[in-house]
Amino acid sequence: MMKTITTMAAKGFKALAVGSALVFAVAAWTTVAAAASDDPLASWNDTAPKQQIIAFVDAVTDPGSPSFVAPDRRIVTFDNDGTLWVSHPIYTQFQYVFDLIRRLAPEHPEWRTEQPYKAIIEGDRAFLKQFTVEDAVKLVNATGAGMTPQQFEAAVQDWLATARHPRWNVAYTELVYQPMLELMAYLRSRDFKVFIVTGGGQSFVRAYAGKVYGVPPWRVVGTSVKTEYERVGGKGEVVRQPGANMSVNGPGKALGINGHIGLRPIAAFGNSDGDIEMLEYTGSGDGRRLMMLVHHDDPEREYAYTCDTKIGRLCKGLDLAKERGWTLISMKRDWKTLFAFQQPKP
Amino acid sequence: MMKTITTMAAKGFKALAVGSALVFAVAAWTTVAAAASDDPLASWNDTAPKQQIIAFVDAVTDPGSPSFVAPDRRIVTFDNDGTLWVSHPIYTQFQYVFDLIRRLAPEHPEWRTEQPYKAIIEGDRAFLKQFTVEDAVKLVNATGAGMTPQQFEAAVQDWLATARHPRWNVAYTELVYQPMLELMAYLRSRDFKVFIVTGGGQSFVRAYAGKVYGVPPWRVVGTSVKTEYERVGGKGEVVRQPGANMSVNGPGKALGINGHIGLRPIAAFGNSDGDIEMLEYTGSGDGRRLMMLVHHDDPEREYAYTCDTKIGRLCKGLDLAKERGWTLISMKRDWKTLFAFQQPKP
Repeated sequence: MMKTITTMAAKGFKALAVGSALVFAVAAWTTVAAAASDDPLASWNDTAPKQQIIAFVDAVTDPGSPSFVAPDRRIVTFDNDGTLWVSHPIYTQFQYVFDLIRRLAPEHPEWRTEQPYKAIIEGDRAFLKQFTVEDAVKLVNATGAGMTPQQFEAAVQDWLATARHPRWNVAYTELVYQPMLELMAYLRSRDFKVFIVTGGGQSFVRAYAGKVYGVPPWRVVGTSVKTEYERVGGKGEVVRQPGANMSVNGPGKALGINGHIGLRPIAAFGNSDGDIEMLEYTGSGDGRRLMMLVHHDDPEREYAYTCDTKIGRLCKGLDLAKERGWTLISMKRDWKTLFAFQQPKP
Repeated sequence: MMKTITTMAAKGFKALAVGSALVFAVAAWTTVAAAASDDPLASWNDTAPKQQIIAFVDAVTDPGSPSFVAPDRRIVTFDNDGTLWVSHPIYTQFQYVFDLIRRLAPEHPEWRTEQPYKAIIEGDRAFLKQFTVEDAVKLVNATGAGMTPQQFEAAVQDWLATARHPRWNVAYTELVYQPMLELMAYLRSRDFKVFIVTGGGQSFVRAYAGKVYGVPPWRVVGTSVKTEYERVGGKGEVVRQPGANMSVNGPGKALGINGHIGLRPIAAFGNSDGDIEMLEYTGSGDGRRLMMLVHHDDPEREYAYTCDTKIGRLCKGLDLAKERGWTLISMKRDWKTLFAFQQPKP
């Protein structure tokens, strides 16, 4: 199986080599353009969250302010799924893995009777609703073990180039929230260090974060698989192995931040109960802090969900937000435009 | 035991709070000054390594060169012990741990009969020569478990402020190699992203890397201990636990680079057999690469060792350097000045 996957990946890698080289040569991660407007947060309505963000940034960047924070401590962390891009009806990485399983299925007759492969191949929605973390780990192994991270990322880029979201029929990378792109650019312009801290796969997010968010791979902290160092054809390579290494979700977000960044953030943005500890850890530091949760309350332009979903569930976090003064960003009320490809609301 | 250590650390933390705040407020990690000279590598003799470094940097930064590398891919990694600062007669972190054990000994009568504590308390050199990794883990637990990383770093800073190296009677942070400081500043000035990849403790190195090397904590990848997220007095904290998490040595350096940085370096600097895989991984990429090993061959000004030591042993690496064209930096021949506090040789 691994050989097959590696071969498959190697083919994908070769096919993508030219495209990837271009992406990397062209991508200027530090110069992702802000909105073409004098207002760096043009896609935000002039409601409380925008005002709070600006007040916070002014306070921590003004050398005369009692809340001043030196540039090297201006750490800000963003969750990815549901905070920076759409995560419904299922996480994009799940869709990627499902598509890959279906593509690989002809070479794996044994999958026709083995779960969770069977359910994916047959499109068994009832089973997929009960989908567990163990199932996810199996699928990530089946579609990634044996690859180098570079091969894995090339395969992801390959998929992202052609896959379309079922609702909008656009590439998944078109479904990043314009207000958040503006926010990241705005914070960068004020010397914040922007990190993504994601429960999703670290390599999956790194595959597109440079081009789409302007965030280089070393600023992406995510859930990772085991790796081994191997000598392949006289070369030293890192190779993905079956099995999880580190889960960057819930308390794992605080641990990932400490391990990877080594400083407590002064601002954090999330959208689900998996972000609670990241916000709590951020808020437990001294001095002025900013903690915000994106609230998906816009069924017309996107989705509406809180406790009633397993994908980006925001339930306990709603109560905690009230209790601790974390700000809810209402997608419906606070965001003028959701996606760059849409027109702003009048 | 843990309570004692935490209390001890908490005291140290409080004592250091003002000093640390100053360090962080003043430290401009991105502006560590180069040597006061037109030559950015003034402490290097004009021998092969210096010429190779300059030729490499020119080649990968000239947009017209076939070896051009975009700024966002200019990753350079440095080992720490023996590459950036002195690591003899023993690793500085070992000295730190030994000193701490002696300081804590009065509260631990059981250590008088238990190894490796007994040997440290008694200064038993024969035992310490046979010192194992398991011993080291025991000591790191005894001196760090139960602390937050911030408390741990404050304790390290506390020690570094007063400890003196037995040979030169200066602070350990004075024993960083001036040529390497210049090299890091030179590379940064050409838009390289400088990372430290150390077999030493990640938190130990982070405690001084900002001030001394101009490298922020998120650019330090190192060996780490297990951590847990805990709620302490209503606050969310990361707490060090007994037990190792990840060893960033040998093959672990390539894995650490992939996990933390996500890109293969184009240049790597080490000094020991523990750096072989880092150099091999670096050299296994396409395009122009630079791999160098500091050769400790200067007993007069520093130390001379190759296969005959357990601390920074360079043995297999000597053969590999010849075989693969990695450059040896001869401390004696290639470095004009070793330390900033010394006068340059006439």
